[in-house]
Amino acid sequence: MIQLKFRDGLIPVVVQDTKTRDILMVAYANEEAIELTRATGFAHYYSRSRNKIWKKGEESGHFQHVVQILVDCDEDCLVYQVEQAGAACHTGYPSCFYRTLDGAVISERAFDPESVYKNKSSEK
Amino acid sequence: MIQLKFRDGLIPVVVQDTKTRDILMVAYANEEAIELTRATGFAHYYSRSRNKIWKKGEESGHFQHVVQILVDCDEDCLVYQVEQAGAACHTGYPSCFYRTLDGAVISERAFDPESVYKNKSSEK
Repeated sequence: MIQLKFRDGLIPVVVQDTKTRDILMVAYANEEAIELTRATGFAHYYSRSRNKIWKKGEESGHFQHVVQILVDCDEDCLVYQVEQAGAACHTGYPSCFYRTLDGAVISERAFDPESVYKNKSSEK
Repeated sequence: MIQLKFRDGLIPVVVQDTKTRDILMVAYANEEAIELTRATGFAHYYSRSRNKIWKKGEESGHFQHVVQILVDCDEDCLVYQVEQAGAACHTGYPSCFYRTLDGAVISERAFDPESVYKNKSSEK
């Protein structure tokens, strides 16, 4: 396994859908989250706001099966290539990148977030 | 324009090829780099190691024409969707993500870096 460069114990992870090839989200992982991802086959991250490891989908059921993990030339960034259950974004859009920088929405909601999340702030 | 959240003045930028849909690289931008990108149509970033703005391709000629800029739900990460001239990675691979976490190379070099970069460390 390649020796990764962490910054404050964390490394950014870009998540890409293997089917649509859309960029779904960007999150952060620590060493333990990467180990859990490799051991279980499901995407785990480290929440900077909640200061804990989280498994994507633990509340929403929108798990990410990780098909392959890529690393960049500088060894300080990862790509998780995933099969996404449901939708990646807590807003209900398939991808967190559902708007242009000018604010135009370029996507359609896949689910109603009110009906999926009991606590809206819990899975971000 | 959406009000972005910068961390230490920077925001991560994921770069995606509009044709192959590959994730090409991850870099950082400050407000000025984003403004230059919007004004010129070519990707600009902020180098954390050199502490200055850089235009991708300024030395290699491998410019990135930015077709669209997306922002995520948290407004703390961008995607530049680009038409990539040449190859994105200074190693000569089309994408910086040319290896799996186990070190297997999953891509082929598009150019010889020795012949493109006079100073190998200059465009990273």
